[in-house]
Amino acid sequence: MRMRHKPWAEDYLKSHPNIVDLDGRHAGKISEWFDKDQPIYIEIGSGMGQFITTLAARNPDINFISMERESSVMIKVLDKVLEQNLTNIKLICNDAAELNDYFVDGEVARVYLNFSDPWPKKKHTKRRLTYHTYLALYKQILQKDGELHFKTDNRGLFAYSLESMSQFGMYFIKINLNLHQEDDGSNITTEYETKFSEKGSRIYRREAKFH
Amino acid sequence: MRMRHKPWAEDYLKSHPNIVDLDGRHAGKISEWFDKDQPIYIEIGSGMGQFITTLAARNPDINFISMERESSVMIKVLDKVLEQNLTNIKLICNDAAELNDYFVDGEVARVYLNFSDPWPKKKHTKRRLTYHTYLALYKQILQKDGELHFKTDNRGLFAYSLESMSQFGMYFIKINLNLHQEDDGSNITTEYETKFSEKGSRIYRREAKFH
Ligand SMILES: C[S@@+](CC[C@H](N)C(=O)[O-])C[C@H]1O[C@@H](n2cnc3c(N)ncnc32)[C@H](O)[C@@H]1O
Ligand SMILES: C[S@@+](CC[C@H](N)C(=O)[O-])C[C@H]1O[C@@H](n2cnc3c(N)ncnc32)[C@H](O)[C@@H]1O
Repeated sequence: MRMRHKPWAEDYLKSHPNIVDLDGRHAGKISEWFDKDQPIYIEIGSGMGQFITTLAARNPDINFISMERESSVMIKVLDKVLEQNLTNIKLICNDAAELNDYFVDGEVARVYLNFSDPWPKKKHTKRRLTYHTYLALYKQILQKDGELHFKTDNRGLFAYSLESMSQFGMYFIKINLNLHQEDDGSNITTEYETKFSEKGSRIYRREAKFH
Repeated sequence: MRMRHKPWAEDYLKSHPNIVDLDGRHAGKISEWFDKDQPIYIEIGSGMGQFITTLAARNPDINFISMERESSVMIKVLDKVLEQNLTNIKLICNDAAELNDYFVDGEVARVYLNFSDPWPKKKHTKRRLTYHTYLALYKQILQKDGELHFKTDNRGLFAYSLESMSQFGMYFIKINLNLHQEDDGSNITTEYETKFSEKGSRIYRREAKFH
């Protein structure tokens, strides 16, 4: 497993081993790590964690995993977990490419991708978190009928992902092409979402499944 | 076959039996109707025909069918065909629901839907030209690897159709979420497209295939 952490952030994260996995010690036994045996939802690239911690606070009957590769960003998620005393969320500080080392096949009920890095250049297509190699990882760890929820302000990434996901054999249950105009009040915003929608960008969203 | 034509329009259309099929006489033998044996592209709901006649003029190596159920609108398509002396386009004045009466299975290379009526009310879902019963018709008449190209300004219809088409097992080769900003110059506008984009609406477009 690749690991590159900032020393100062690492020390802080290390001081909370019951919440943060920095070295893969819970790989293959994530379910056991949680107090309660209930469905697992994960967010990949959580950034500062506003979305996933709000979701966790609202849904005590779900176990949440925040996966983020930057330890210097992950500390903000830890802060929020500690402040709110959340017991149904764990943090994995690693790259999404390592997902299947952590999760048993079919262990996950839902994957969230929010404002993933767009990698707009064609030569960087492989790095997009909706490139087919990543979709294959999600399919592997998701249970049958598991869902992938994706939100972004990036029109190019959203269009690319509709192509990529449909070509991979996924289908869409719910699509919003201007989420903030269509929202029924259930939307939980992320840090990037607030920033971009204040600039006037439309927010795109979809819920998808594997055929 | 259902037929309800305006008498005055019908007389004009009837006076050009080599271009217009008003009564299904070419049903089941569309290919024979054309001078040349070449791929068939059809547009469903052509309206006044600016799109399909421009396309036909630019692509003499393709045979085109304009299908439009309103005879009072179809006369505008006929006018354009006559003015430009186009020989690679025929007009079928009937409802899309009758498609498979006209075409042999796998006879069509491409289907175009442009600015189809949105039918925004939930109870009218079945009337949308991307409802699954219509998709089944397109699949039947399209050749293997045939394409469905769809354009609209209607955000709700576009989102619905992404859901409906992906659920039916279609995938997307090319998606534009703001066509007029992304166009490489190859876009041919329709009458509705001009009207709605002048009002400031974004135009959505996709190219899709059946898995
Ligand atoms: C643009 S930010 C969005 C953060 C947050 N989701 C939001 O909406 O505010 C993308 C985040 O994903 C993380 N990230 C990007 N690629 C990743 C990968 N392959 N594995 C884990 N995290 C990744 C980045 O470190 C960054 O924090
Ligand atoms: C909103 S207009 C768009 C016309 C044209 N495509 C454009 O973009 O300017 C829709 C057209 O589709 C036709 N239409 C609607 N439903 C149809 C059906 N089921 N079969 C054939 N034509 C249909 C209508 O008569 C109308 O002319």
